[in-house]
Amino acid sequence: MNEPAISFRTTAEAGNARVGTLLTRRGEIETPVFMPVGTAGSVKGIRFEELENNDLDARIILSNTYHLWLRPGIETIRACGGLHRFTGWDRALLTDSGGFQVWSLGASRKISEEGTEFRSHVDGSLQFLSPEVSMEVQAALGSDIVMVFDECAPGNSPREEARQSMELTARWARRSRQRFDSLQEEDADTGKKPGQDLSGRQALFGIVQGASHLDLRRESLQRTMELNFDGYAIGGLSVGEEKKVMWDVVGEVAPLMPADRPRYLMGVGTPEDLVEAVAHGIDMFDCVLPTRNGRNGQAFTSRGRLNIKNAQWTKDARPLDEFCKCSVCGRHSRAYLRHLYLSGEMLASVLLTYHNLRFFLDTMRVVRQSIRSGEFPKFRREFTEQLAANGE
Amino acid sequence: MNEPAISFRTTAEAGNARVGTLLTRRGEIETPVFMPVGTAGSVKGIRFEELENNDLDARIILSNTYHLWLRPGIETIRACGGLHRFTGWDRALLTDSGGFQVWSLGASRKISEEGTEFRSHVDGSLQFLSPEVSMEVQAALGSDIVMVFDECAPGNSPREEARQSMELTARWARRSRQRFDSLQEEDADTGKKPGQDLSGRQALFGIVQGASHLDLRRESLQRTMELNFDGYAIGGLSVGEEKKVMWDVVGEVAPLMPADRPRYLMGVGTPEDLVEAVAHGIDMFDCVLPTRNGRNGQAFTSRGRLNIKNAQWTKDARPLDEFCKCSVCGRHSRAYLRHLYLSGEMLASVLLTYHNLRFFLDTMRVVRQSIRSGEFPKFRREFTEQLAANGE
Repeated sequence: MNEPAISFRTTAEAGNARVGTLLTRRGEIETPVFMPVGTAGSVKGIRFEELENNDLDARIILSNTYHLWLRPGIETIRACGGLHRFTGWDRALLTDSGGFQVWSLGASRKISEEGTEFRSHVDGSLQFLSPEVSMEVQAALGSDIVMVFDECAPGNSPREEARQSMELTARWARRSRQRFDSLQEEDADTGKKPGQDLSGRQALFGIVQGASHLDLRRESLQRTMELNFDGYAIGGLSVGEEKKVMWDVVGEVAPLMPADRPRYLMGVGTPEDLVEAVAHGIDMFDCVLPTRNGRNGQAFTSRGRLNIKNAQWTKDARPLDEFCKCSVCGRHSRAYLRHLYLSGEMLASVLLTYHNLRFFLDTMRVVRQSIRSGEFPKFRREFTEQLAANGE
Repeated sequence: MNEPAISFRTTAEAGNARVGTLLTRRGEIETPVFMPVGTAGSVKGIRFEELENNDLDARIILSNTYHLWLRPGIETIRACGGLHRFTGWDRALLTDSGGFQVWSLGASRKISEEGTEFRSHVDGSLQFLSPEVSMEVQAALGSDIVMVFDECAPGNSPREEARQSMELTARWARRSRQRFDSLQEEDADTGKKPGQDLSGRQALFGIVQGASHLDLRRESLQRTMELNFDGYAIGGLSVGEEKKVMWDVVGEVAPLMPADRPRYLMGVGTPEDLVEAVAHGIDMFDCVLPTRNGRNGQAFTSRGRLNIKNAQWTKDARPLDEFCKCSVCGRHSRAYLRHLYLSGEMLASVLLTYHNLRFFLDTMRVVRQSIRSGEFPKFRREFTEQLAANGE
């Protein structure tokens, strides 16, 4: 197999910011790209037809290994032919490793060299996740991009704790790589789909950890690169640390990441974070903000965030965002959306989530345009100023 | 004003069953027609774009006066230009009168000659609904078809109780008619939209009551027809009485209803009920079954009902209905839909509701076709046989 699992090439640059083409076995993705989160195999409240339409045109979504492993379980997903066939989503899928999800269970998990023991949120049963198990689950899911199983140290971890965690992550990355490679040989990947000069195999991304300690981050990157991954991610950010810590780490690590591989900043962030991270050379993002906040009544707009519950919108005939061309803004008023939300109508969540996804995805589209046209610095300045205009 | 508010003409017949064209100020509707229920100005979980697409193509939906009056309230809806503009739905809207909703509050309402006093389910405040108030609210909503304010006697009401209720309904119908007419003169209707040889005014439908007593039903129909309504409805059925009672009443009343006006059977029913009622000459239906049962995990299929929670679907790659051409059946398996439902994913409700609406709306389309082609008796027999095939 000489063909790679994915290919990436840069097509335009502006400082560290770049536009690229990420070719996966399930189609081409222009970067920088935002990946909507579809935890349990569904982007909450949004039909795939909507994700595929011109308004949203999401080329890749993220699903969570932890959730799908526990329910419906790997046996079911394998019997149904993998996650793409099981869900009916035929575009690209990235799965996380379950590492972060298990880490976020806090007190109820126990970490050892071997892996992590924890109790299932579904039925309370005792479960064990390790690099090998995570790779096996992700092969059964057949996702197009697989993430290594890592250990996440919080941004404010003391040096010694952060070092131990980073070293554990490095050892787990090696075990992930090994198990992943043998699973590809064994043809365990349910999503195999050759074509377009690609091997049709799954791609595997490494994850850089090290909390706020820049030397640990550099070491983590070095040790991760030694394993030769298809792409590289920065993990362990946007988990409660100060913003400054995040930008120090991203500013340090991103320029050192291989230029010929996609760079993925995990779990980030607000629209302003995305634009800032692009300026540092990041290509891929995922975040629950547009979906989760949409369900809670918060809209992201070009003029800042808007809480649909506020009484000031009671009779307001304006759309969520007067500059947005999405089908929600083209049709529905703040007054109606507020009414739906206060009446407990599920359509409120559906419509706010849709608009928010459109805002995130469209922001990435405009970012790519502005890099291509040489106007990224101008866009970056104006975008941030506008967001502050009516921010709540 | 010589032009009517709506026009109705029969275009094909099969026994008592008929196909008609109902022309409203918001477009043409082929009957028999099923009206999805959009209680609070939203068909729960379904975007208007979906109701308008070719899969569903719902030409008219029903909203509830009671709910919209209490929340967001008439002042808000009037300020937003009526219910069409408030919600963004530009096709036909029928509103019920609030009579049935208030009646179904049971012990917490007090009925007098003047109207009904009750406590709001939203904030517990004391409220009063009467024929005049109902007409005022429905004018502010600007619905295309307005229902008179009636009193509903349960199907098993004893004769004297049923008579008193029917007579109260008759007096309320007269008061509804009077207030409705004066509101049209006052231009209180927010939905006015002249054109296509129609006055652009709201249409008003009368309601026949009388519980299970056929002589009371005939008298109710007579007294209702004296008021010359744009259409006629049968109320007080599908409220817990035996099926036989419903068919006795429909069989007695429907053939006596004016042939040149649409006949509406309120709150009915299952797919088999709809086909049966069409055979009795009914033209219009509304029912919460496809939407409410969809949210509860029940699918209506051409082979009977299917409970998506059942373990037997765990790995079932078949669609909900193998004979259905809707976008849900074209894409998603029972296994996936079951997973979504058990995971508490709102998309389960969205997709089941969508499929169910398609089944109800498509059944009406096939009914119309079979009447036109002279094959309605055959269709009616086969449809009922098939529904029993896998019924749960």
